[in-house]
Amino acid sequence: MDPKFDELKSRLHEITDLRLASAVLNWDQETMMPEGGVRARANQISTLRRLAHQKFTSEEMGALLEDLKPAAAQMPYDSFEASLVRVTWDDFEKSVRVPAELVAEMSRAASEGQQIWQNARAQHNPVPHAARAGRRMPAAQGNFEMFRPALEKLLALTIRYAECFAPYESVYDPLLDRAEPGLKTSQLRPIFARMTEEIVPLVKAITNKGSVIDDSVLYQEYPEDKQWQFGLEVAKAFGYDLHRGRQDRSAHPFTTGFSINDVRITTRLDPRFFSMALFGTMHETGHALYMQGHDQSLERTPLASGASSGLHESQSRMWENLVGRSREFWQCWFPRLREHFPNQLAHSAVEKFYRAINKVEPSLIRVEADEVTYNLHIMLRFELEVELLEGRLDVKHLPAAWNAKMHEYLGVTPPDDAAGVLQDIHWSGGGFGGFPSYTLGNIYGPHLFERALHDMPDLRQQFALGEYLNLLTWYREHLHKWGRMLKPTELIQRITGQPLSVEPWIRYIKGKFGEIYEV
Amino acid sequence: MDPKFDELKSRLHEITDLRLASAVLNWDQETMMPEGGVRARANQISTLRRLAHQKFTSEEMGALLEDLKPAAAQMPYDSFEASLVRVTWDDFEKSVRVPAELVAEMSRAASEGQQIWQNARAQHNPVPHAARAGRRMPAAQGNFEMFRPALEKLLALTIRYAECFAPYESVYDPLLDRAEPGLKTSQLRPIFARMTEEIVPLVKAITNKGSVIDDSVLYQEYPEDKQWQFGLEVAKAFGYDLHRGRQDRSAHPFTTGFSINDVRITTRLDPRFFSMALFGTMHETGHALYMQGHDQSLERTPLASGASSGLHESQSRMWENLVGRSREFWQCWFPRLREHFPNQLAHSAVEKFYRAINKVEPSLIRVEADEVTYNLHIMLRFELEVELLEGRLDVKHLPAAWNAKMHEYLGVTPPDDAAGVLQDIHWSGGGFGGFPSYTLGNIYGPHLFERALHDMPDLRQQFALGEYLNLLTWYREHLHKWGRMLKPTELIQRITGQPLSVEPWIRYIKGKFGEIYEV
Repeated sequence: MDPKFDELKSRLHEITDLRLASAVLNWDQETMMPEGGVRARANQISTLRRLAHQKFTSEEMGALLEDLKPAAAQMPYDSFEASLVRVTWDDFEKSVRVPAELVAEMSRAASEGQQIWQNARAQHNPVPHAARAGRRMPAAQGNFEMFRPALEKLLALTIRYAECFAPYESVYDPLLDRAEPGLKTSQLRPIFARMTEEIVPLVKAITNKGSVIDDSVLYQEYPEDKQWQFGLEVAKAFGYDLHRGRQDRSAHPFTTGFSINDVRITTRLDPRFFSMALFGTMHETGHALYMQGHDQSLERTPLASGASSGLHESQSRMWENLVGRSREFWQCWFPRLREHFPNQLAHSAVEKFYRAINKVEPSLIRVEADEVTYNLHIMLRFELEVELLEGRLDVKHLPAAWNAKMHEYLGVTPPDDAAGVLQDIHWSGGGFGGFPSYTLGNIYGPHLFERALHDMPDLRQQFALGEYLNLLTWYREHLHKWGRMLKPTELIQRITGQPLSVEPWIRYIKGKFGEIYEV
Repeated sequence: MDPKFDELKSRLHEITDLRLASAVLNWDQETMMPEGGVRARANQISTLRRLAHQKFTSEEMGALLEDLKPAAAQMPYDSFEASLVRVTWDDFEKSVRVPAELVAEMSRAASEGQQIWQNARAQHNPVPHAARAGRRMPAAQGNFEMFRPALEKLLALTIRYAECFAPYESVYDPLLDRAEPGLKTSQLRPIFARMTEEIVPLVKAITNKGSVIDDSVLYQEYPEDKQWQFGLEVAKAFGYDLHRGRQDRSAHPFTTGFSINDVRITTRLDPRFFSMALFGTMHETGHALYMQGHDQSLERTPLASGASSGLHESQSRMWENLVGRSREFWQCWFPRLREHFPNQLAHSAVEKFYRAINKVEPSLIRVEADEVTYNLHIMLRFELEVELLEGRLDVKHLPAAWNAKMHEYLGVTPPDDAAGVLQDIHWSGGGFGGFPSYTLGNIYGPHLFERALHDMPDLRQQFALGEYLNLLTWYREHLHKWGRMLKPTELIQRITGQPLSVEPWIRYIKGKFGEIYEV
């Protein structure tokens, strides 16, 4: 190919190095850095990002891509060369549409917004609310009014950002596109409608059965070091390569990578609640396996990354839920778990444990929700942020709208803002349009998994034997290796032979929980 | 001042951010990184360094400094503004003298050289040498001939580097200047001659007394976690601020900083030898205290760094030896140490322990040498590298020359190259001119310390009470806060009222070891 292609690669190497260096600095900040380092670290990360952005949006880069486009278009669509030029052009074109001052203003507003949100959420109101005494809820009650001006500012900036991409069907489209390239708001609505149609009655049926599942086995003393050890054992069994990764503790679990061969996860531990660490570790392992599975030829380019947030969530949630919360998985692992925790599990059998980790209970907090109710939390946020952005909902009515929808979908009402509208960090950093990816991940998961089951009909039996390599190899071959070379819609179509569909998820949920709850 | 001064600061902020980010990546590589990350990490570090170098040596930077020099010269010599312009100009002027290709070639030769040196040192010769059975010596025998071509190349490149700074008195001067700005080879020679005159007879006298010190107490099982805990306790007592630092393990101990407020040390532990971890931790703590003590106004500039390698060593060796190997220190800490290790120290008293950690014994390995013989190892290296660079010694005769000098100064003869000429990493990376800083550190130490004793006559009694804050405060005020604003020679003159002198060190050594050995 054109010698200009080598120039493109060499420019992208430099830009990728800067971005990955910034990721190392961020990982260090979350896991290792002493508190004194905060200010200098903010400067270092901001310098690296600014340089990467400058270099990526330079005129030279634009001219180079323009020169390369015709030749790239002649090459096979899914070749490395064609993909690199195409994806980089898309990224470039999006980057240069947004004025540098707006980017800077959004970044400042996001930092300030997160600070204000943290304070607002931690706020104690003068009259303690007697009603809130949930098992694992923070003591703060939160004060939305404190956060309101920051949120209004963030919304205004986000609309200005979206307008850089006009014309569009919905102002929400350019935001959705950041997480799920190519997906439109109008495609999401029927998916969510179809889900509501099926889940709301299912949740009601389960709730009407009363509390038939006892999950107290999960709320005992589980020493942290044994939890850590068991979690890592499972991660390794799933195929996480610790020669190309490591696990550390952090306040909020995350996965990050500085190379296809250096992909790190973090976890958090609760010595009195079993599920948090293990299912968190499985989840992050799913992200890490995706990142460790990109083809080595993508290294040091913008292609060495997941195809979308939703596809990333499809991997994390697949390992966490489809594998990690399956009966077959625990047929293999429950005896091993009992070796680690003989006293805690003396009176438990695998079936009882399986039911405990799959208990369905409408609750206030998204990150604690079960597989059935989880998407209702997302749907609520999606609907509210679309209404806010399209100007159909005023920010001052947001808490009331939130509480009304919680009641409508889940039958629960937040006692205060901390347990309601202030619970997530996303909006405080301007992250509108990101929530749907969680649900898309849940949907992509069973859709791809049905195909894997079709190719390997004994897959579930393999889980019971502690065998996960065939599953991982299948995903490597069909999804992981591609990185960002293909779009999510293209990948789904190629792998399943169908467009995006919510039906596999509905079949999976109704099958699994219909059996557990006999509804 | 000139608004151009703000431009200089802003350029230096960006360059410093890049350099510090690269230091974070390096720390991570030595302490945390999984092995898979090696290749990507080398690319990332090299990109950051290249960008920092490009930006620092740009024509714009040169023009800006030229513009600022006249105004800076009008300001007080030790003001922040004058110092920043002066020191940056010096750095700039040195950087641009060396052609970019030579820098690149040296960097490649250094990487290759270290690789070859590692292999050559680990080489097992066909006939095992019966004589070598030292207590803590590596099993390899080393093969200098394998390393010779790489060393010849490194020497040739180093001479080309030095020639960029012609004219000079000695080709060694520009190399010495990298570590000790302003110091000349001709100033070092009389210092080393004076040391030889005093130490060689002292070592002979001590050796003639026979083995009067039993240090077997140090060679017992010391559990690693308790060693770690005790070392950190001491580091904190010295004043190391863990809100602005942390300690980790690494193969070779080092100190690094990413801000005045994020200075990290590493240590290594030997479960069967007590001295390694503790005195290593004290040493690195000394470096860290220097770095944590720079004035906050120097943050994010090239001034936030030690004045020279020698002054850095003066701090690390002062805390390690003048404080940490003093009788008064152990009067306070020995009872605490015995709480950590009651069995190991059941039959020891403080005086016996004090003598054990101060045992003098001519040995083959520099990094294991005691306070008395240490400088003889440096002197030997200094003399040999000057002869090599001045063309008076051929590389092929280096092992013989090494062994002859070892015999002359220390009365010992290396059984093989691994325990002789191949023991240090420095030359394999092209680090000629760096060794004298170790001895300069030893000399600066007592010179400054005599002054501190003059200002605070009860300093040693304070050590016995576990009180080190007055000492630290004195160093902060007289040395640490200045960073690189003043040169080593200027600092010594300001603090002691005298030029560099070896006499305080001679007094210290003869006093301490004359008493211990009654010679």
